[in-house]
This record gives sequence, structure tokens and C-alpha cells, in this order.
Amino acid sequence: MSSTNSQVIRCKAAVAWEAGKPLVIEEVEVAPPQKMEVRVKILFTSLCHTDVYFWEAKGQTPLFPRIFGHEAGGIVESVGEGVTEVAPGDHVLPVFTGECKECRHCKSAESNMCDLLRINTDRGVMIGDGKSRFSKDGKPIYHFVGTSTFSEYTVVHVGCLAKINPAAPLDIVCVLSCGISTGRLPLISTRNVDEDDVAAEGARIAGASRIIGVDLNANRFNEAKKFGVTEFVNPKDHDKPIQEVLIGMTDGGVDRSIECTGNVSAMISAFECVHDGWGVAVLVGVPNKDDAFKTHPMNLLNERTLKGTFFGNYKPRTDIPVVVERYKEMGLELDKFITHRVPFSEINKAFDYMLRGESIRCIITMDD
Amino acid sequence: MSSTNSQVIRCKAAVAWEAGKPLVIEEVEVAPPQKMEVRVKILFTSLCHTDVYFWEAKGQTPLFPRIFGHEAGGIVESVGEGVTEVAPGDHVLPVFTGECKECRHCKSAESNMCDLLRINTDRGVMIGDGKSRFSKDGKPIYHFVGTSTFSEYTVVHVGCLAKINPAAPLDIVCVLSCGISTGRLPLISTRNVDEDDVAAEGARIAGASRIIGVDLNANRFNEAKKFGVTEFVNPKDHDKPIQEVLIGMTDGGVDRSIECTGNVSAMISAFECVHDGWGVAVLVGVPNKDDAFKTHPMNLLNERTLKGTFFGNYKPRTDIPVVVERYKEMGLELDKFITHRVPFSEINKAFDYMLRGESIRCIITMDD
Ligand SMILES: [Zn+2]
Ligand SMILES: [Zn+2]
Ligand SMILES: [Zn+2]
Ligand SMILES: [Zn+2]
Repeated sequence: MSSTNSQVIRCKAAVAWEAGKPLVIEEVEVAPPQKMEVRVKILFTSLCHTDVYFWEAKGQTPLFPRIFGHEAGGIVESVGEGVTEVAPGDHVLPVFTGECKECRHCKSAESNMCDLLRINTDRGVMIGDGKSRFSKDGKPIYHFVGTSTFSEYTVVHVGCLAKINPAAPLDIVCVLSCGISTGRLPLISTRNVDEDDVAAEGARIAGASRIIGVDLNANRFNEAKKFGVTEFVNPKDHDKPIQEVLIGMTDGGVDRSIECTGNVSAMISAFECVHDGWGVAVLVGVPNKDDAFKTHPMNLLNERTLKGTFFGNYKPRTDIPVVVERYKEMGLELDKFITHRVPFSEINKAFDYMLRGESIRCIITMDD
Repeated sequence: MSSTNSQVIRCKAAVAWEAGKPLVIEEVEVAPPQKMEVRVKILFTSLCHTDVYFWEAKGQTPLFPRIFGHEAGGIVESVGEGVTEVAPGDHVLPVFTGECKECRHCKSAESNMCDLLRINTDRGVMIGDGKSRFSKDGKPIYHFVGTSTFSEYTVVHVGCLAKINPAAPLDIVCVLSCGISTGRLPLISTRNVDEDDVAAEGARIAGASRIIGVDLNANRFNEAKKFGVTEFVNPKDHDKPIQEVLIGMTDGGVDRSIECTGNVSAMISAFECVHDGWGVAVLVGVPNKDDAFKTHPMNLLNERTLKGTFFGNYKPRTDIPVVVERYKEMGLELDKFITHRVPFSEINKAFDYMLRGESIRCIITMDD
């Protein structure tokens, strides 16, 4: 056990005081980890669209002040009561959704939607006692999806930590803790571009001979090519529904489609453009609350499959360490996703890059 | 080669002269099998709802006179040019949908929707030359789904014949050529009862501990119990949507649901009642032409899968012989489905039993 185990740590954190306002680097207090919790020293974190989405807080109940951040890599500093799976010094990736290993989802080979630790974007406190571990001048600061990695130290439930090989380069594999985590499919999609790239990269790795990118923005093609997209279609260039265009291009439909935007018409197109007999449409993008997915059931009868996915269907503790171990042999080129790097003191630049659509991932190096 | 190879055979067939009128046993001529065709002596056939549906011809283009029948077992009498896979004397089950073994569907491990021989209920002729092999007094009689088994002899494309072990009891395994073919899931559903029984039987064989039957007809429960249904729910007994009732009964949803009616609201309920994380809804029932399947896409994102199926996803030539070989060791109790038997001369009784809802399968024994 570390000597700091039961002590409050004072460290720097980037605090979001108000929706949409630049983060402010503050000195905060981080309470010791309680039962089943782990305190982690963050070394690298990166910005994901989901952080930006909840920081902008448009159409949500705002929860401020808050410490955002959920893609990161770090080292265990101390552990609370009952934690046996990790120990101080272990390298870990915090994950915004957890794996308790005891609920029916965790015990099912097919699910990763843990009953206890499934992502909850509305909760700003620890699940154990309903309190925050962050404070400034005695006033609590809210957590974000159980990770809050925009801080030199954070407290995370042990079920939300993937213990990884310490030889893995944390400044690169940290991007596996969210969007690019699975090497196959991304997760918290937020109407933005990088999920498309992950989907394309996944298809490239899987050996697809043709990868057709569909985007309303023609400028996306050049970047998409880096991730293996071989053809590009812009729905604006066609009078007929894009699914008909794709069916025409592919002699009956594609083998697999991946929808990343969350737009419900795009979801329907993605489903209807797969080939009958074997086609599978995978939905990744998160839809609006009041959308309805509508299709003729005959499309299903003709042996098409429609499948939703969450965090690429990976279990955080069980699968992510394996992905970290194997991403190179899988041929996953993580470097391609890392377009920018900034020091922690310049974290607001990462927001600018993303808001201007310039970055895929900007790695934020915590100051030593 | 049989000596009758190139000769017309005169035999008895049950001809449907008009929609909805009793069949008439007639002496007909059956032309020799042409290229890639096989002439089969039918020994046993049974009546399926699909026969009744097209015989009633409500809302379809009527095609009469026609010889119905598509569930049967028989023996190869002679073969046409190019047929190498079966020879006179082989035991075969005709199947209403085929497997050419050369198209992309046939070459795909996942599909059984052969481009060449996929079911076509509108075509009343052979696919090779667009002509009928049946005639009476020189006037052609239409085929039905490429099988027309209500005849002592019929001509079938070789791609629509499953060659089976001659030791298998033809008077029982003949029901495997359609509805009960797969031991898992049935196929041409026609808004009727027996698919439910097959679905339940499949679940029983698969070891499901609870099998919940859902039906508007409370009288169905006793029969359903024979096929493994352990609980029964009647939507009429509840104020809330049936999916909510099922979710309540099963602590979050069922592992797998099978929809057999083709009713689109039932399909939606079947999808929404599966558990998030791992639930799979399988659609078997054939919907109306203008139905729309509508659900909130979040139901998909939460790792539910929606899957359509056709003929239980079995490839007729490749898989059906294996099912015939293994149905006993799989624990599939075919006898339970055979509720009636009649001689060919009384074939109209089979229609009566089905129309009155008394039968599951009525086996028709061809007269010797
Ligand atoms: Zn993310
Ligand atoms: Zn769990
Ligand atoms: Zn049938
Ligand atoms: Zn084929």
C-alpha cells in the first residue's frame, strides 16, 4: 500500500466551471479511494467528442463545476478497501463504463452493459457513497462518467479500470480507453467524424476489399483514405436514396455497414443498403431521444441483421487489456488517430482543435 | 438411367381448377425431366398453410389450374441432362426454395437465398424453359413453388431436391421439407399456428428453461405445452404492452424471441421484449406488403439484435440431409407434429382439418 493511501492529495485539475466556458487549471483536493475504489495518477489523457458534448451541455441538465475527461492512461497510486485486482504501480486505462464481473451482463459472454457500472452521464458522484472525491476549498466538484481524467489524480471504481501491460506506451494506448478502444468499433458516438475513421480502420484490418465512405462533406475523402476508405459517396450528388446508390455500386448491397452519426435516416439507409442473405448493419451512433427507426419488415425477413453495439461490445476489464496487448499484431495503426499533442496547461487548445474539426485525437500530457 | 427417362408418364394428380374449390383427382401427363431436372415418384406429401394460402388466392394473381403441394418425400424415377447428384432410386425431399451451389448466396456460408432458385410463388412453370411439365388433354397445368407434390409423379429442378438417407422413414421425415424442416425454425409462415409449435420445440431442444408462449387464443396453451411451452401469456389479459409484461416476468427481458405471425406490432413487441446486452429477436412470420417496422433506435444501441430468417437459414441440399440424419439425436420429436393421415383420394380432408384449425400436419399417402 502506498503511504498516501488514506491522505487527501492536492493536485492540478482542469475544472469546467460553466457550460461552454474554457476550463480553468485549479489546485483541487482529491480524497482517498473508498471501498472498491482506486486513486490513479493520470499521465496522458485525450479529448473525445463526448467530453465536448457534455461540456457544451446543450439540451442536458448541466452539472457544474465538473472535471471532464474519460480517455486516459495512468498509474495506480493507492487502492481502497476490497480492491485486490490492482495495486499501486500498475498501469491502467480508466473506462467510462464498467465491468463488475458479478451481474448478469458481466456473466453473459455476449454483453458488456454491466448493471452496476454501465455508463451514466448524469451521475456526478461516486457510486459507492453518492459523494464526490474532488473538492476545492471544501466545495465538491462533480465527476464525469466515473473517470474525470482531466486531473493529475482521479478516483475510479475498480470495475472501470483496465489493467494493462506496463510495457505498452501509455501516451499512445490511452486512446484505446474510449473511441478507438476496440480496434473494431468505437462507442460514445457524438455526431462527429472520428468514429467513421475507426469504422474504416476496422474494416481495413478485417481485410475488406472495398470500403465505401458515405459523407455529406466531400472534403472528408482525403482523410478517410488514410483509414482505408477506397471509394467515397456523397448523398448530395445523387437524386435517389443513398441505399439505392450503394446497392447499385455493389451488385445487390454491401456485406456490412456501420452507421456512426446517430442520424436515424442514416441508420435506415445503413440497414437497407446491406445485401440480403448475409448483410449485417451495425449501429454505433447514438440517436436523438425521439427518433424512430422505421423499415419494411421484409428487409429483415430476407436475412438481413440489424445489430446495435456499445463500446464495440468489449468488456472493459476483460477485453481491453487484450486489445492493448495485441493492437500491433492486429495491424491497428493507432498513430494515425493522434493528430495533435498539447501540455496539460494548454488543454483548452484541444477543445479548439476539435471544435474546428482539425483533430482526431489530441493527447494531453500531464505536467510533471 | 431408368427406362422411363424420355417418356411421358400418366398418373394421378390432385388438380386445383379454381381458387378455393376442392381439388379433383385427375389423370395427368407428366413430361420427362429436362436439363437439370429430376422426375420424382412422390410417396408421401403433407399439407402446409402456404398451399392453402395460394389455393384460396385472396389478394394474389390467381394461377389455375395448378398442382399444389411442397412438403413431401419421394424416390427419383428419372433424371434429365446434366444431373449427376441424384440417380433413379435415390430418396429425396423436394424443397420449395433451391440451392444452385453457384451463385453468391449459395457460396456464402450465411445465406440460403439462392439467386436462381429462391422461392417464387408467382411462377407456375419450370425455370429452364418457362414451360409446365404437367398437362391434361394437352392443356398445361401450372406448377407451384417448383415442387407440385400433390401428384404421383412430379418434375423438380435438381437444385430443389435434398437427397436423404434411404433408411429415414419417408412418411415422417417428409415434414422436414418445409415448415418443420429445420428443427429450429420454420419458414413460409402464414399467420397460423404450427410455426409457434416449431419455435417452441426448437427452444425446448436448445434447452431453454422457460418458454413463454404468447397468443391471443387462450385455448392454444394446452397444445403448446406439448411442444415445451412452460408459461403462457395472453395480451388480452393485460392493459400494458405485452413487451412490458414479458420484461416484468423475466427480470429485464427474454434471451430470445421468435415472432411467427407476421403481424408487425407483434414483431415490434418481439424485438422490444428481448433483454438488452444479449437479446436476439428472430422474425419468421411474413409481414403484409405495406407494414412498417418501427422502434426507437436506442433499443438497438443497447445491444439487441434483430434478425430475419428464411427457411430457418438452412441450405436445402446441403443442410436438410444432415437434419434428416440427425433429427432423432437432436431430440426433435417429429411425431408430435403429425396429427392426421389420409389416403391421396381423400386429400380434401386435409384441407378441412387445417381450415378448422384441428391439424398441425396431415400426411397424405399416395395410393399405390
Ligand atoms: Zn469518448
Ligand atoms: Zn456487471
Ligand atoms: Zn410449407
Ligand atoms: Zn444459388
